[in-house]
Amino acid sequence: MAVRIGSRTIQLNHAPSVVGFAAVGAKKEKEGPLADYFDYLSEDSSFGEKTWEKAETLMQKKAIELALQKGGIQKEQIDFLFAGDLLNQCISSAYASRELQLPFFGLYGACSTMAESLCLAGMFVDAKLASRCLAVTSSHFCSAERQFRFPLEYANQRPVSATWTVTGGGAFILSKDAKQPLAKVAGVTTGKIVDYGIKDSMNMGAVMAPAAAELIAQNLTDFKRKPEDYDRIITGDLGEVGQQILFDLLLKKGMDIRKQHEDCGMLIFDSQTQGTGSGGSGCGCAASVLSAHFLPKLASGELERILFVPTGALLSTVSFNEGQTIPGIAHGVVLESCISSAKKEG
Amino acid sequence: MAVRIGSRTIQLNHAPSVVGFAAVGAKKEKEGPLADYFDYLSEDSSFGEKTWEKAETLMQKKAIELALQKGGIQKEQIDFLFAGDLLNQCISSAYASRELQLPFFGLYGACSTMAESLCLAGMFVDAKLASRCLAVTSSHFCSAERQFRFPLEYANQRPVSATWTVTGGGAFILSKDAKQPLAKVAGVTTGKIVDYGIKDSMNMGAVMAPAAAELIAQNLTDFKRKPEDYDRIITGDLGEVGQQILFDLLLKKGMDIRKQHEDCGMLIFDSQTQGTGSGGSGCGCAASVLSAHFLPKLASGELERILFVPTGALLSTVSFNEGQTIPGIAHGVVLESCISSAKKEG
Repeated sequence: MAVRIGSRTIQLNHAPSVVGFAAVGAKKEKEGPLADYFDYLSEDSSFGEKTWEKAETLMQKKAIELALQKGGIQKEQIDFLFAGDLLNQCISSAYASRELQLPFFGLYGACSTMAESLCLAGMFVDAKLASRCLAVTSSHFCSAERQFRFPLEYANQRPVSATWTVTGGGAFILSKDAKQPLAKVAGVTTGKIVDYGIKDSMNMGAVMAPAAAELIAQNLTDFKRKPEDYDRIITGDLGEVGQQILFDLLLKKGMDIRKQHEDCGMLIFDSQTQGTGSGGSGCGCAASVLSAHFLPKLASGELERILFVPTGALLSTVSFNEGQTIPGIAHGVVLESCISSAKKEG
Repeated sequence: MAVRIGSRTIQLNHAPSVVGFAAVGAKKEKEGPLADYFDYLSEDSSFGEKTWEKAETLMQKKAIELALQKGGIQKEQIDFLFAGDLLNQCISSAYASRELQLPFFGLYGACSTMAESLCLAGMFVDAKLASRCLAVTSSHFCSAERQFRFPLEYANQRPVSATWTVTGGGAFILSKDAKQPLAKVAGVTTGKIVDYGIKDSMNMGAVMAPAAAELIAQNLTDFKRKPEDYDRIITGDLGEVGQQILFDLLLKKGMDIRKQHEDCGMLIFDSQTQGTGSGGSGCGCAASVLSAHFLPKLASGELERILFVPTGALLSTVSFNEGQTIPGIAHGVVLESCISSAKKEG
């Protein structure tokens, strides 16, 4: 049964299992260091579609299809689908889910969506509101660029603090009582909105780092854990600039996560050779890197326990143009290996 | 304990109580037939703010503040906040929730958001994931109009099938074990995406009616109920055009809800004198009418059981311009009076 510990954390004692997961990406991801571990990589960022938005939809559908296939799960066995994306009115998720005909909760958590959806899915399974849930999100460089910044044809220049939206998606299936669990969701810490008054939309790392720091500190406090109790503490897309701020903020609280921390945005691209600035970003960054890079390590027992903390920047072009500061949010998901637990119990 | 009945419905046997609720609106709502029942109505649609988006934020904050105040609840007693709105990246909800510092799940369900948030809040309380949850949404005519249609200054003409976005918001607090419950959430039916291939963004009623029909039929089937088992079956903003389509679709399935059906969009304005076309619309329409009109009737025992089914149209200006059809979604919330239940039990 789900048990509230501390002020914002819920321990999931039934520990919903990850029984299927998949990562998809496109050309730039194929040229990056994690290419070998994606389930599907398209040479063509349009995925054969006529618009970037339709391409993103297709990519999200592909992630869902592969997660179901890899987990040997029929879509009819899914009780709830939690999905969201960065596009206005979350159209990628709506169109990707249309043919699935599953009970659907649409989410908006910006680039924290993979954690938001995993939190809800995990809590639903643990509290017996569902037997199986699907959590999914995506982002696409081209659809995001023209929505949030400039038309691609404009070829705008970027400061080094800017990140590069990942064209990718990830899908995860959480289930009760799995025979062959690949990992388990052992707890969740729900985020609150944190606003440090930053207005620079080309420095998302600085916007979101305070939310990540707040969430990580809260998770460690609620669980009475030290950073070393996690093999990895993983942010979504803080990038190099945001990572430094995260370290500084946590060191001020007496928490040193420098040995445990990895950022999905810094893993997915080689910024030196790929020209991706501070790192990769977007909902699809954390989603695909969790699936391609970290989940297999949990499944094999190479990692025993991780804290997954993607962050979102809650801005729109309108709020930016109206001079508003940019609030951030982070949600935290504790994922544990099933192999190491079995060993310990044995 | 929450019990799954049928394929898409969950019966909430602990029946989370509504312990606080509030409706806010502005000038046009003040001129409408439900004006006397709103908790706060501003003469000035800008709510004293410099932009429409900031006005919507302030309005949502006001709804939350009043719901807490009316329920005698401190914000610190809230475990989770579920919120969303129509604006790109849901900025009204993000900014409205910023100072609350509550665990926050951002939602996007278009005009179905009041039901989506109540479904999640109800399930969380029933499954003991939370003691108290807050569900909130809003819409603003001026921020929606310029985002989805034209600048206000353009003074565009509208077909009679068009609806008028309500400038309003609603907030509801659900709690376990309330001493003086005002109503209870007895069940939820989660929506799936329904697309009848309609592309006319000036006829939202036609877009959303199929989702409402599908949801209502599913709820009646899952609960093994007839329309007359509900005192009211309430849609959010189908308007006059959508209502007819809803009746037709359900009659084809042998379900006649004409005696029970009411539409919040047809209640909030007097379309003859207020020039609001097919009716009111927007997340704030269903939210404020549920709070101002239906909740008090449940609290007094005048109504015993209602099915609240606001619908959302999952489009963006981009998906519309790219020629995509508009999918709809509806979520269903069964609300029951506590007075009549007590009588029956007595």
